[in-house]
Amino acid sequence: MSTTPSRAPKKTAPDSARRSERSRRAIYDAALALVGEIGYARTTIEGIAARAGVGKQTIYRWWGSKAQVLMEAFIDLNEQNAHAAAEKYAGVPVDGGGLPDSGDLEADLKLVLRATIDELKDPRFEAPARALAAEGVANREFAEEFIARLLMPGLDLYAARLSAAKDTGEIRADVDPEIARDLFVSPLAQRWLQFTGPLDHAYADKLVEYALYGISARPKKPQA
Amino acid sequence: MSTTPSRAPKKTAPDSARRSERSRRAIYDAALALVGEIGYARTTIEGIAARAGVGKQTIYRWWGSKAQVLMEAFIDLNEQNAHAAAEKYAGVPVDGGGLPDSGDLEADLKLVLRATIDELKDPRFEAPARALAAEGVANREFAEEFIARLLMPGLDLYAARLSAAKDTGEIRADVDPEIARDLFVSPLAQRWLQFTGPLDHAYADKLVEYALYGISARPKKPQA
Repeated sequence: MSTTPSRAPKKTAPDSARRSERSRRAIYDAALALVGEIGYARTTIEGIAARAGVGKQTIYRWWGSKAQVLMEAFIDLNEQNAHAAAEKYAGVPVDGGGLPDSGDLEADLKLVLRATIDELKDPRFEAPARALAAEGVANREFAEEFIARLLMPGLDLYAARLSAAKDTGEIRADVDPEIARDLFVSPLAQRWLQFTGPLDHAYADKLVEYALYGISARPKKPQA
Repeated sequence: MSTTPSRAPKKTAPDSARRSERSRRAIYDAALALVGEIGYARTTIEGIAARAGVGKQTIYRWWGSKAQVLMEAFIDLNEQNAHAAAEKYAGVPVDGGGLPDSGDLEADLKLVLRATIDELKDPRFEAPARALAAEGVANREFAEEFIARLLMPGLDLYAARLSAAKDTGEIRADVDPEIARDLFVSPLAQRWLQFTGPLDHAYADKLVEYALYGISARPKKPQA
């Protein structure tokens, strides 16, 4: 990994730090705009540099590859979105810092899934997210970093919230949180990735109710 | 849509029909191999023709675009897989013709999800399926045909099986089959598309049990 601006040399003077921050922001914006417009494969370091109005050496000084620039640009966008969502949902920490835990699992899950749907449909987010996700589907090596840095941290928050709900007796003791989380997260992912149906708040609410209370009209049979 | 070999001129002599069938098969094999190796964007009609050992006019006579060749090659592969799966699962119609309906919804869903996982992990299927899915994520126009012809027919079978289970009283009367189907299908799709966890028979079984009987330890609250 190359040195990124957040780990810039300690001796940087204030003016230089401001210039670096301005360049970093311009590079992130250019990278996200380009990948959304022309896709991952055709986006290049040269193209990002030209659009950001910086020399390509500026990019190579901070990042080792186009994948790294894009990944960090996207993580930065996610953080901005998380702050915006937290504000919108009245101080609830929607992303970083764990899922809301009000003691009412059903209400908490509906809140988070609704916020996630809003984020997935945000036009600033959608084009670059889709280009990166498409690359991840086709390219296992890219996928591994994409998953580790962007996808799993979010999925782990769901598993942690469900584990907490097992401790309080809201969730059955035999439930595996890393499987159960998929009942909430994967339907959103598939409808967003593959356009298999409408993605709205009513859908989020139904998913939560079905997964928590089941769709069967009959009790579970005793298993052998 | 152009004329495909299955709708070939009526006057075709037996020898010519055999040659056509051989060419069609060679073109499908070449298209699936190429898209798996170099991706959708870099696959061309010329490349498919060269690999199949046919003139590119042969391809243009039957198909209007590379997307159409690939889609039909993939539908053909799916049909072959469905036959193989049906044989493996002792005559149960796994794909075409509806999901199994033995009267035991839990057993039927486990059977079908396990078979789907086997198919997703089949190496002949995986590379081209991944290349087409990646293109569908990034390209809405391609996605629409991909969804209508390849994805939705499968999803509709789940919704139909769940509707039948509502009629027999196995599923609660207020359940929407087009939302409930996602609890079974989407977790498989996401683990396959995004490598978010192991995809095995034990996972299929847990999904079915969680979605049918719920993960909550408490009954559903009366809704306002």
